[in-house]
Amino acid sequence: MITSPDNPKLRYLRRLSDSKAFRAHEGRVVLEGLRLVEAALAAGALPALVLVSAELLATERGHGLRERLQTAGATLLETSPALFRATADTATPQGLLAAFPIPQPPPPERPSLVLVLDGWRDPGNLGTALRAAAAAGVDLALLTAGTVDPWHPRALRAGMGAQFVLPLEAAAPEQVAARLQGLDLWIAEASGERVHTAVDWTRPAAILVGGEAEGASGASLSLPHQTVRIAMPGAMESLNAATAAAVLLFEALRQRAAAG
Amino acid sequence: MITSPDNPKLRYLRRLSDSKAFRAHEGRVVLEGLRLVEAALAAGALPALVLVSAELLATERGHGLRERLQTAGATLLETSPALFRATADTATPQGLLAAFPIPQPPPPERPSLVLVLDGWRDPGNLGTALRAAAAAGVDLALLTAGTVDPWHPRALRAGMGAQFVLPLEAAAPEQVAARLQGLDLWIAEASGERVHTAVDWTRPAAILVGGEAEGASGASLSLPHQTVRIAMPGAMESLNAATAAAVLLFEALRQRAAAG
Repeated sequence: MITSPDNPKLRYLRRLSDSKAFRAHEGRVVLEGLRLVEAALAAGALPALVLVSAELLATERGHGLRERLQTAGATLLETSPALFRATADTATPQGLLAAFPIPQPPPPERPSLVLVLDGWRDPGNLGTALRAAAAAGVDLALLTAGTVDPWHPRALRAGMGAQFVLPLEAAAPEQVAARLQGLDLWIAEASGERVHTAVDWTRPAAILVGGEAEGASGASLSLPHQTVRIAMPGAMESLNAATAAAVLLFEALRQRAAAG
Repeated sequence: MITSPDNPKLRYLRRLSDSKAFRAHEGRVVLEGLRLVEAALAAGALPALVLVSAELLATERGHGLRERLQTAGATLLETSPALFRATADTATPQGLLAAFPIPQPPPPERPSLVLVLDGWRDPGNLGTALRAAAAAGVDLALLTAGTVDPWHPRALRAGMGAQFVLPLEAAAPEQVAARLQGLDLWIAEASGERVHTAVDWTRPAAILVGGEAEGASGASLSLPHQTVRIAMPGAMESLNAATAAAVLLFEALRQRAAAG
């Protein structure tokens, strides 16, 4: 039973939550709550460190997950509900948080559908887009230099486990072109030249969506590309960036399914 | 120049931001920041009360908007940046907030595309869905009893002006059936009987999407309906609710455009 807020393991977990650099250095990430931990286990990941409080045992599901973690050989550290909450980033962490190794599912050698997330600043929005990309089964999500860390606690919460099933790569500007070789690059723009339903998505393609505030970066716009717009009959300028990414991805899936 | 935090007008604005009941009683809502105020003006709304601080004049765009508000006959109350921030709900309100009358654009008599938002708890997610619905030009967004207030400050921020162009109705359970008369009701479910691309969306339709946590309510499931799922090849259980709503709406639009 851990009783001091200065316990080194609690400090370690807090630092993993707070610092992108520390996550990268340790190659670990903190997941909070039943759903995220379950998703990581379902993807085959094993926790390096688990912190629990009595609240975990308040539900049948929590009981079951605790047993599953113990059976998997994880060491469970216990602390008081108050100290647990002080360690967690979420308001209602359900008495469970765990440090997992950052997974690195490899992308296929010749990807046929890639989502490029360019200059996304909001971790929640990024996580929502990754959730859609994982659901759509994209081969790779490529994050440009200006995009926030996909392992940020809010990105993880919005991702609902996407980060554990989706091949993810952060790419420096000079790497992006090589990564997109062999793919048509379509950059989403409000005034794009082609309506998204008129694009031939049966060809290997990368869809680039810029962040809410600034759109696609100059570096991306300097790559050979075409522009695509989502036809919107209503009186709005644009969609939320994660929404736009999902609409484009699911139109690509629809065309591919129709083409067999 | 307002110098006291106890000024009745500042208290009035704070109360409008904080209380759904007070918003409903006053028939007014507070918009913060240039973009939302511009969107409301573009939709033809006129503010009842405007609060500004010197920060508004930091940008050309702020200058222009201030002039536009004065030309439109709005009374501008001025306060210090510190007191302004204490009144605002947003972290970076850009020196501008305004109380607008809650707009009530009437839905068409015979709507052909309706989005039903059933039991949505998160205002940000609701706003994102309303933004997509407004962009898709749906005739009506129907909010069931369990759904949060679309005039909540976070719903407004995520909506990006959608609430000012989209006919919105909050419907008590006993009103929903009447409101959906003449429309096919499709309830989105992970295990829905029909894939969304195989539904005939050229028929007048209502799309019902439940909130993240619990899905469609019992009251909604007791209405005559069919269920629709979004085919997801990836290893995820579901999409974010606003994402799902957008994917369904834009597939309906695609089919309607293709049918001419």
